[in-house]
Amino acid sequence: MIDFVYYNPTRIVFRKKSVEKTGTLVKEYGKKVLLHYGGGSIKKNGVYDAVVKSLKDSGIEFVELGGVVPNPRLSLVNEGIKICRDNGVDFILAVGGGSVIDSAKAIAAGVGCENIWEYFIDGSKPINSALPLGVVLTIPAAGSESSPSSVITNEDGKYKRAIHGELIIPKFAVMNPEVTYTMPLKEIANGCSDIIAHLMERYFTNVQNVDLTDRLIEANMRTILYYGPMAMKEPENYDVRAEIMWGGTIAHNNLLNTGRVGDWASHEIEHELSAEYDIAHGAGLAIIFPAWMKYVCNVNPDKFIQFAERVFDVSLSYDNKDRIINEMIGRLENWYKSMGLPTRLSDLNIDDIKLREMAEKCVEARGTVGQFKKLDADDIYNIYKLAL
Amino acid sequence: MIDFVYYNPTRIVFRKKSVEKTGTLVKEYGKKVLLHYGGGSIKKNGVYDAVVKSLKDSGIEFVELGGVVPNPRLSLVNEGIKICRDNGVDFILAVGGGSVIDSAKAIAAGVGCENIWEYFIDGSKPINSALPLGVVLTIPAAGSESSPSSVITNEDGKYKRAIHGELIIPKFAVMNPEVTYTMPLKEIANGCSDIIAHLMERYFTNVQNVDLTDRLIEANMRTILYYGPMAMKEPENYDVRAEIMWGGTIAHNNLLNTGRVGDWASHEIEHELSAEYDIAHGAGLAIIFPAWMKYVCNVNPDKFIQFAERVFDVSLSYDNKDRIINEMIGRLENWYKSMGLPTRLSDLNIDDIKLREMAEKCVEARGTVGQFKKLDADDIYNIYKLAL
Repeated sequence: MIDFVYYNPTRIVFRKKSVEKTGTLVKEYGKKVLLHYGGGSIKKNGVYDAVVKSLKDSGIEFVELGGVVPNPRLSLVNEGIKICRDNGVDFILAVGGGSVIDSAKAIAAGVGCENIWEYFIDGSKPINSALPLGVVLTIPAAGSESSPSSVITNEDGKYKRAIHGELIIPKFAVMNPEVTYTMPLKEIANGCSDIIAHLMERYFTNVQNVDLTDRLIEANMRTILYYGPMAMKEPENYDVRAEIMWGGTIAHNNLLNTGRVGDWASHEIEHELSAEYDIAHGAGLAIIFPAWMKYVCNVNPDKFIQFAERVFDVSLSYDNKDRIINEMIGRLENWYKSMGLPTRLSDLNIDDIKLREMAEKCVEARGTVGQFKKLDADDIYNIYKLAL
Repeated sequence: MIDFVYYNPTRIVFRKKSVEKTGTLVKEYGKKVLLHYGGGSIKKNGVYDAVVKSLKDSGIEFVELGGVVPNPRLSLVNEGIKICRDNGVDFILAVGGGSVIDSAKAIAAGVGCENIWEYFIDGSKPINSALPLGVVLTIPAAGSESSPSSVITNEDGKYKRAIHGELIIPKFAVMNPEVTYTMPLKEIANGCSDIIAHLMERYFTNVQNVDLTDRLIEANMRTILYYGPMAMKEPENYDVRAEIMWGGTIAHNNLLNTGRVGDWASHEIEHELSAEYDIAHGAGLAIIFPAWMKYVCNVNPDKFIQFAERVFDVSLSYDNKDRIINEMIGRLENWYKSMGLPTRLSDLNIDDIKLREMAEKCVEARGTVGQFKKLDADDIYNIYKLAL
């Protein structure tokens, strides 16, 4: 186990009817709020009305900025920053999923600096000021509701990059699984794919002696693998949606990578895909992760075997480690398929034309990506090829 | 899964050489500190010197109060409250294990109220003010370093009672597994017993559909069961001590009882024991838990069977549930024995003379204890008898 600092102060309010209480929570932090959201879904399912009523009941003034799209755009972030400055906004309320929350975080951090994109370029410039923000979560997936990270796409050149900092950890997250009942099933599938990706990125580490966190990750993995397909079949089963929603938060609140170093290559390799082709992040991960596994498993086969046995119940003779690992990857791919997710680039009609270009772009900022195995542009190109 | 609010803002600084940085952390909160600790161990193992040097280097004034004993006493709490008032203390630094931290929390909450014991009597009176406090953890066990609870013994009548409140959650916890190398092995055993008790108290719930938290608890249980005996044999194995120290915190930071209701009868039944006989809490739990299991397992045998299979690898034919449960309890008792812990009252030369009196006292405040099965004085008496 390696040294770590763990700090996660988000107040999670996980309950039915919690959306109606949002104003009370906001009131502790701000008087003038930017209400930030995406497309029309929250206006159709009643969440928008409940939030607006709650803000009004608490006497909170607000301005609005909707229109966040998946792979949220820098242009809208800059628009939000301007609105905050012009209106003296002192708190941002994100109502939506990871894209909306990430957009809100970028606005929060951007209000106090000249050019927020500078912080995204290589993600290492420290964020020294940010407006406080809160979340009403409507999509279980990204874990952004209690994470210190934000991922934004700069349309000018199709760059998708991240920032990290304690100041952008949300103050609270209101979570009511009922609001996910009306989500398109495709989004549920993408969300579950994102959640297990967050778990697997943390799991595959070269740090030794991390049994407790290994086991906690396995626990969360098994839960999502089990409840994901149920969520597709029983959209209004509260408990099923609740397991996924809470699992999604715990997968990404950094508890599960205490004392270890996550990999995150698959996320970065996927970011190039969704920046270039504007595909759903979860779908991209379902394509990249199996290919990544095939490419890197020889770095530490025993870690993959432990994963195969404890998470996918693979019970084969240990005299052929490759068979165990391949069996696990096959079961993972079958799970993706059972969720209606693609597992190959060709499933999304993506051919090999841009692969080299994306691979080069992926390592542009830092030369390599990933920690389990440091991958250069050639490695990434090979992984894309395996995913064709 | 039931509704919940989860909030755990303690900053965990988990690293080698972390004790030397304590002053820097304290400085963010206070200028005049009460340094609170127990007996002589921190003076022997260098922790006291490192903390004092760090406070001085950061220019922090402090007054001291040592002498906290296991099952920490109200009289010392009251002494601490007086010292804080007389010296204008604005921050409390607890250096020790659960007893020291609990004592510090009671002092922190007591400074602003007339009679702190009033809050302990039935534990439901809300705590509206408290000095901020921080922790340098030296004993992995109680989980008090990031919990909202404090348990104090009132010597006047031998009452052991608890308070709970967000204001007494420590601001930070400095955790360096190396400082546990010199702990007496008996204390390691007691600590591990306390940790698995915190996990089992949470596990045995009648709330349905709590699979994620079930699995997370199981993950932590397996870790402590595996590393506990190793910690006895290899006192200076960093990774072993680290797994236990971090497992102890996660066991009790309330993440693992989100969406469920813990039982806590065994803790309350044990509190009477340690209040009466001043035995170690962990030893008392090793005696009470198996007896409690035998007495209540029929309330929901399937929960015990899941626990037997997933935590203790019991793999017996399901046509005799009792055998599975008894096998699990036997393995748990064997684990306690492997740690050198008692599993019967007679192992500590405690006879049946006070059992009825303790059982009556245990339910004095609320009529029953426990949630998995609500236990009255007769039930508790029977459990004590099973533990003889």
